[in-house]
Amino acid sequence: MALPWLLSLRKVDIFCSPMSGRLYSVLRSHSSAGVRSCDALVYRTRGHPREVLSMENVVLPHVHETDVRIKMLAAPINPADINMIEGTYALLPTLPAVGGNEGMGEVIEVGRNVLDLKPGDWVIPVDAGFGTWRTEAVCKASEVMLVSKDIPLLSAATIGVNPCTAYRLLMDFETLMSGDTVIQNGANSAVGQAVIQIAASMGLKTINVIRDRPNVKDLMETLHSIGADWVLTEETLNNSKMADLFRGVPKPKLALNCVGGHSAGNLLKHIECGGTMVTYGAMARKPMQLPAKHLIFDDIKIRGFWMTRWKKENKKDLRKFNTMVSLLSEMVRKGKLTAPICTPVPLHDYKVALEDLTSTNGRKYMLIMD
Amino acid sequence: MALPWLLSLRKVDIFCSPMSGRLYSVLRSHSSAGVRSCDALVYRTRGHPREVLSMENVVLPHVHETDVRIKMLAAPINPADINMIEGTYALLPTLPAVGGNEGMGEVIEVGRNVLDLKPGDWVIPVDAGFGTWRTEAVCKASEVMLVSKDIPLLSAATIGVNPCTAYRLLMDFETLMSGDTVIQNGANSAVGQAVIQIAASMGLKTINVIRDRPNVKDLMETLHSIGADWVLTEETLNNSKMADLFRGVPKPKLALNCVGGHSAGNLLKHIECGGTMVTYGAMARKPMQLPAKHLIFDDIKIRGFWMTRWKKENKKDLRKFNTMVSLLSEMVRKGKLTAPICTPVPLHDYKVALEDLTSTNGRKYMLIMD
Repeated sequence: MALPWLLSLRKVDIFCSPMSGRLYSVLRSHSSAGVRSCDALVYRTRGHPREVLSMENVVLPHVHETDVRIKMLAAPINPADINMIEGTYALLPTLPAVGGNEGMGEVIEVGRNVLDLKPGDWVIPVDAGFGTWRTEAVCKASEVMLVSKDIPLLSAATIGVNPCTAYRLLMDFETLMSGDTVIQNGANSAVGQAVIQIAASMGLKTINVIRDRPNVKDLMETLHSIGADWVLTEETLNNSKMADLFRGVPKPKLALNCVGGHSAGNLLKHIECGGTMVTYGAMARKPMQLPAKHLIFDDIKIRGFWMTRWKKENKKDLRKFNTMVSLLSEMVRKGKLTAPICTPVPLHDYKVALEDLTSTNGRKYMLIMD
Repeated sequence: MALPWLLSLRKVDIFCSPMSGRLYSVLRSHSSAGVRSCDALVYRTRGHPREVLSMENVVLPHVHETDVRIKMLAAPINPADINMIEGTYALLPTLPAVGGNEGMGEVIEVGRNVLDLKPGDWVIPVDAGFGTWRTEAVCKASEVMLVSKDIPLLSAATIGVNPCTAYRLLMDFETLMSGDTVIQNGANSAVGQAVIQIAASMGLKTINVIRDRPNVKDLMETLHSIGADWVLTEETLNNSKMADLFRGVPKPKLALNCVGGHSAGNLLKHIECGGTMVTYGAMARKPMQLPAKHLIFDDIKIRGFWMTRWKKENKKDLRKFNTMVSLLSEMVRKGKLTAPICTPVPLHDYKVALEDLTSTNGRKYMLIMD
């Protein structure tokens, strides 16, 4: 598990490189020659981000032979980041920690043994737990991965987790052929938007379920504009209109669930016999309500997916991850994959985003390091 | 789908052989030479068994070249039989129909082209939907399967569905080795009892969950006596005592759920990472309540099993089914597998069993054809 590399405490600055296990203690003396610092959103106890996160100036460690120093450029606020700060996530960094798992930065300094990265390169974290909500970071070169500079900054900052999750969801559970159908709830989530676009590029049809809301028609239009074949509300999913829909399109072999509660059960009943429902989130924060008959009589399989576990399982050979990111970058270049719809906020105005976390407008924020 | 072979209507007797598609209409004239009849528990509409089942005298078809005539000896009342009569099962015979899917009979007459069965043989239905609650039956020889006569009658009458289900649950989802643990709810069900015994013979440890009830200690003792390692109530499953248990035994790779509701979620949280929960029943008649985190973070797989589907998938070559029944019969002979604890009731006293269907004593009835 990657830990935050450096954190300022009251009297002593502690920074650690999780990959090497090195742990430093440095007197807080920012004026000392050669000691660099950065701003970071730090939490020292677990709880609601609004209450536990604060902007701190933290010391950066020296750039050793195999290290890189990165100027962070952008980092999204994802649901997993919030769960991690609250302490409800399966992967919890030792406190104090810096928030944020996903993001993108530019290399500004490399250790003398670093051959595969150079100043000016764009990089993203390899693992979860990086602590991306900061202006700068020093880490092992092996902890980051090169991304192409010819894609938009916001795409680069959001390519390493959500589109990768979407890609694996579509690739790893069912053998899907052009013309097959995929159904998903939470279709307006970052993963959901990537699923729509990657599925469209594979010739798959998507049935996209969203919660009803005041601006539902606008959202439906937006999702259609990125390639959604059908967009419908949870209420429609539960009524007889679905029978009409399935007269014109094959029942889905694959269902993707990031909501849980009754929504998961509503997806389940529309899956083709022998198909799979994959759960990768629990936005409703309620247990999935699943009628057993679909498993018993229709042989529906229910699985879970966690990108962090996938990365761990594929850590020894990063080529698979690299290839996937290259493929997704190519989709971005071709205009087939866009960054999720999000609201940019300067890092130092992070409170604007945190204030809005509990609202149900589904707005996604992107911290921009100015 | 197997249909009931023969049913008496008011003026005309209709009987059909589902395998051949033959349909006969015979005037109701039981005194006619050569026309045999039998008693059968018939339902003409779907509903509560107590309200829709009645004993009728129905005409038996002539025994053709490839047919057999069977004197039924014993047939259990299983939950699936009830669901089928109520109309909530996935496989519903055309009405009117005879109740009962499992049972055993003795061959008393064979058609001249039947070479692999002879009078005196014991047979069980190959498929679900046989209609076993009757005194006699005529069917294609291929619709029944020989069972050994050197096992007790009640074991033979209950070997074709529940022990087979238990065997497949233990064989088809996880590779279990001696010393591994299996957890199950509804452990006192017919399948549950077979799981305990088959698992014990494989060197597996079983954690058996039952509902609390007035005679819970007696039931615990009974399950221990057939080989259960641990027997505990749903309440215990949900408390801190489980941590103590798992200090001495590995966490289960396999969980078997026939209850649903919260019980399914309670099983889920004790499964070893990467393990599987298989659902084969829904006794609580409530959707499974499953926290997503176990799927996402622990990679727990959730599957369903239906013996009827397994039989259908293995219908072309009955050797696999035959081998399984022979193996289970051998276990019975060795005293390692007993018939489920049940209360015998003469077929004509069937109302005694039906009156008790809604009670929660968990009593299982076996209809005996006198």
